[in-house]
Amino acid sequence: SESSGNLMVIAAMEQIKQQIARENIHFVRFEATDLHGVSRSKTVPVRFFHEKAVYGVSMPRSYLELTLSPKSNEVDHASSANFSSDVLLIPDLSTFRVLPWAEQTARVICDPCTVTGSPLRTSPRLIAKQLLGQLQSLGFSLHSSFTYECCVLGAPDRIGPKTLLFPATTLLSNHDLPFFQQLVDSMYCMGADIDSIASASGPGQMEINLRPEFGIAAADSAFTFRTGIKEMARKHSYIASFFTDDGLYNAGVLAHSLWDANGRRSFFPSEEKPGDLSEIGRKWLAGLLTHSAALSCLMSPGLGCRSHIAKTIKDPKRMLYATCGCNDNSSSFNIKCHGGRETHIDNKLGSAMANPYIVLAATVAAGLDGIKRNLNIESLLNKPPGQQREITIPVKLEDALEALGEDPVICCALGEPFVQYFIAMKKFEIETQELDDERNKCLEYFI
Amino acid sequence: SESSGNLMVIAAMEQIKQQIARENIHFVRFEATDLHGVSRSKTVPVRFFHEKAVYGVSMPRSYLELTLSPKSNEVDHASSANFSSDVLLIPDLSTFRVLPWAEQTARVICDPCTVTGSPLRTSPRLIAKQLLGQLQSLGFSLHSSFTYECCVLGAPDRIGPKTLLFPATTLLSNHDLPFFQQLVDSMYCMGADIDSIASASGPGQMEINLRPEFGIAAADSAFTFRTGIKEMARKHSYIASFFTDDGLYNAGVLAHSLWDANGRRSFFPSEEKPGDLSEIGRKWLAGLLTHSAALSCLMSPGLGCRSHIAKTIKDPKRMLYATCGCNDNSSSFNIKCHGGRETHIDNKLGSAMANPYIVLAATVAAGLDGIKRNLNIESLLNKPPGQQREITIPVKLEDALEALGEDPVICCALGEPFVQYFIAMKKFEIETQELDDERNKCLEYFI
Repeated sequence: SESSGNLMVIAAMEQIKQQIARENIHFVRFEATDLHGVSRSKTVPVRFFHEKAVYGVSMPRSYLELTLSPKSNEVDHASSANFSSDVLLIPDLSTFRVLPWAEQTARVICDPCTVTGSPLRTSPRLIAKQLLGQLQSLGFSLHSSFTYECCVLGAPDRIGPKTLLFPATTLLSNHDLPFFQQLVDSMYCMGADIDSIASASGPGQMEINLRPEFGIAAADSAFTFRTGIKEMARKHSYIASFFTDDGLYNAGVLAHSLWDANGRRSFFPSEEKPGDLSEIGRKWLAGLLTHSAALSCLMSPGLGCRSHIAKTIKDPKRMLYATCGCNDNSSSFNIKCHGGRETHIDNKLGSAMANPYIVLAATVAAGLDGIKRNLNIESLLNKPPGQQREITIPVKLEDALEALGEDPVICCALGEPFVQYFIAMKKFEIETQELDDERNKCLEYFI
Repeated sequence: SESSGNLMVIAAMEQIKQQIARENIHFVRFEATDLHGVSRSKTVPVRFFHEKAVYGVSMPRSYLELTLSPKSNEVDHASSANFSSDVLLIPDLSTFRVLPWAEQTARVICDPCTVTGSPLRTSPRLIAKQLLGQLQSLGFSLHSSFTYECCVLGAPDRIGPKTLLFPATTLLSNHDLPFFQQLVDSMYCMGADIDSIASASGPGQMEINLRPEFGIAAADSAFTFRTGIKEMARKHSYIASFFTDDGLYNAGVLAHSLWDANGRRSFFPSEEKPGDLSEIGRKWLAGLLTHSAALSCLMSPGLGCRSHIAKTIKDPKRMLYATCGCNDNSSSFNIKCHGGRETHIDNKLGSAMANPYIVLAATVAAGLDGIKRNLNIESLLNKPPGQQREITIPVKLEDALEALGEDPVICCALGEPFVQYFIAMKKFEIETQELDDERNKCLEYFI
């Protein structure tokens, strides 16, 4: 009940103040994620922390959401404001952490709200929390973890006007230890628990996967990890990037499984046949497959990550299908249950550029739909992935955007304003796609 | 018996944990070998070591086995999975060692298994362990050691686009002591015991031979040595390479002898005539000679190492024969019994590029066949190597691959899936052999 919440808040507040006193913190960074998973923040001297934590930090909305052109805004009623107003960053106190790599600074993740305190319907983190709420209300909880591929390179020096190639940095010998040790230790202090590190197939490409956690914590850790690794790399004067273009592809995988509300039993393993998916699991999987066109739009949102897909299928008229398999890394939904981990599904539609909150929200929205409408995909399940040709995935971004628009379940699960904003946003990029200008915007992402 | 195994595992586990605490280890590297003997690994924070050691570390199979084209996969039944799935790296705890050249890191060698825990039939280390098992079951054990030639050079700087020549590095004066002292000390700490070091005929070329050990330990040490010397060289900013091309040839020799099951008596020396081969020895040798066409395919698997052979016999129609001799370094199987070492056979078909586990497995498979089918080669043995012209060795790789395919004994000893994978793999290289693209792949090997 909303009842003891206040008691909790006061207790949590007190604990944080003690930590501020004990670890001699002078600044707190209030950060929120924007659409692309890049963190936007305001730094506040610590003596205003209590007040800011209660009333939130105000920030012009345009910091979180780039403004589109001013031609189209409809007439609407009172409670949701328009685009160039302020939003409030209301901190989620349980995400308060001391930044191990920055002097005397802590950070807290915030949810953007309108000034009346009601949550912003286009903010990825809140959408994720709502969908997790629905799961909670149905007696479920999500146990998930993110796995990222990213490139860690030596710093590029001397940027000429015309070229942007990756200088053949001294390949990070594949065990550049001190940096990764600090990365692992620092992330652990931040709650982002790294399970293992390996070098991936691209040059300087690393595969890092995180430990699974319950609920929103999984996405928070992913978000923390993405911001952290960029800044730490900077301090070692490396560059860490999740960017994908035609040459190099960074994947982002969400491994997830459905548990009961208080995280005791998993609903994915089936009793009679160990290693197979349970009744509920198959419905969840059916949901994922049914909406995989819309999902692919949300999970690999960059033009760059599309041209990679286009390349893997040379001749232009060949279709790309959504497949599922058991312990099969070439299928878009991979069922695994080994290595001491309970049965879970790897959602491999995404790239490392996707915003982890959106990835989480979209996956839950699709899975939940499978359970509510009892979808089933028996016909698909017992053919090997190679012959599963029923569900197509659009290759070009425009088509993916349409598929998203025409998917009512996803649209209303993520909320109408978010989907429209997302679609409008991507079209905006497609229209204005001279090569060099996109470079600069990408430099922006790239920082 | 499988009984006390578990007790052993728990005891071994405890010991390792104490070592982790005592030597302040923060990371454990789980490594397995791929087809080419290059180690693939995942690094895990030490607090997950216990769990990973029990359930294994999962890794996409494609890290261990490069994927071929997707055209041909047959229909097969339940117990063996297909190609783009995960495999589990199950650690062999007795190979746990602290890396003397890396801060706070240890390593353990793993056997790749399918996710159901059953071993991967294409993994070289397991094939070697099975064949040693057969030996064990017949009351034999193998006492063997590897000898490698490799080049240790100063680092190349400033890579131009078109050329790849060895800058006239200051020739490692032939006694660059500190590096080799550390190499010897570090390897000794890792269980890889170096017997002696000498400089070989090529510039910067060194000949390093290891002490003989029983069973799989010999191959583990070779594997450890190959990975280790590359990384240590790096720390001294040298390059260590086993690569062979037309200019320079790095040999890899397996010296082996057959003993009784618990390593007390050797079956190779003959009672009546000291220095000659025993009854069993000659059968073993006959086996090697009979399968030497298939063996040569497995033991010098690189195109580079072929063109070297081609060059030593100029005019094209002259044949290459498998020979055996007594203390004769120009024959492919050399019987030695001096220098305080019991009688043993040097298998000199191989190059330093071969995967030590495959070398071991293939040698055992051939020798065992000689014993089972009582083959004999008297007609060969008492002619000097010069006139031994009965068994031909194919010079070109294609022919060698055919010879391998048409050798049923070797094929079923190493297991059908491995041989087919191996052949498919090499053909794949032969087809796509433009010069520069192979350079890059070779750079890949080269690391």
